[in-house]
Amino acid sequence: MADEALFQFLHNELIQYVYKSAEQGEMENGRCITKLENMGFRVGQGLIERFTKDTPRFKDELDVMKFICKDFWTSVFKKQIDNLRTNHQGIYVLQDNKFRLLTQLSAGKQYLEHAPKYLAFTCGLVRGGLSNLGVKSIVTAEVSVMPACEWSFVVVGLRISTATFCKLK
Amino acid sequence: MADEALFQFLHNELIQYVYKSAEQGEMENGRCITKLENMGFRVGQGLIERFTKDTPRFKDELDVMKFICKDFWTSVFKKQIDNLRTNHQGIYVLQDNKFRLLTQLSAGKQYLEHAPKYLAFTCGLVRGGLSNLGVKSIVTAEVSVMPACEWSFVVVGLRISTATFCKLK
Repeated sequence: MADEALFQFLHNELIQYVYKSAEQGEMENGRCITKLENMGFRVGQGLIERFTKDTPRFKDELDVMKFICKDFWTSVFKKQIDNLRTNHQGIYVLQDNKFRLLTQLSAGKQYLEHAPKYLAFTCGLVRGGLSNLGVKSIVTAEVSVMPACEWSFVVVGLRISTATFCKLK
Repeated sequence: MADEALFQFLHNELIQYVYKSAEQGEMENGRCITKLENMGFRVGQGLIERFTKDTPRFKDELDVMKFICKDFWTSVFKKQIDNLRTNHQGIYVLQDNKFRLLTQLSAGKQYLEHAPKYLAFTCGLVRGGLSNLGVKSIVTAEVSVMPACEWSFVVVGLRISTATFCKLK
């Protein structure tokens, strides 16, 4: 419980600080998201090295994704991903019905616009983790209903282009 | 192990970001330290509320300090404070022979000047925690030898003035 809270509070401070320093320097929202995403990327890179220190080599991409859904997610967010779907061609949709960094937010629809800043760091976190496991990816997050804290993201392997990804999505 | 790493990596990113944004805005070192300290303060305030939710009321200041040394420190840094000294008049010296946020730094003397930025957040963390337990304090940190990662800090109750504090120190 304690560690959970520590990460959560620190994460909140980080977001606040990034957005506050953006106000002063007249940085736009998009750049804040990028900054948070980059920080997540570096943290993810570091974390995955620790996590996989004693893990046997992964068989394939799906194996990597399962590791992310179970071990990685449990370590960071204290719960597993609720649902993993894939088209077996490089697209993975992961669903977390109660994403921990969103559960602190009020359920109202008016806060939906604030969700992206609470997802950016994690997008980077997963992208960084995957990157150090040899899976280059584009990670996006979506929140449809806040109370249920549902969110999903898509990971794309190197072999399909961004255009295909957009079409498929 | 995982949580430890997460906090550590996130803490490092925070420091890097604060110092990077300071460079752009020509903010001096002192203000960066203050910013980190303030973030720690708010995190500490939040944390202590969670930690003490089911704890019986503290008897006195020393009791509070013991809680900080044991429970609080273990939750955040995975180890207890190694040594607690007090003059029973509001000064407490806590010693951690292997402070976790410093153990990642190289042991050389040339890195000693970088130590303060790795201590600022924790200074705030403890000050915030104590503040929400009703103990107003001034928290400072000192590193004498980096390899041993020795550090100590002094907490001053409301009843003695800053002048007395400086004299006693």
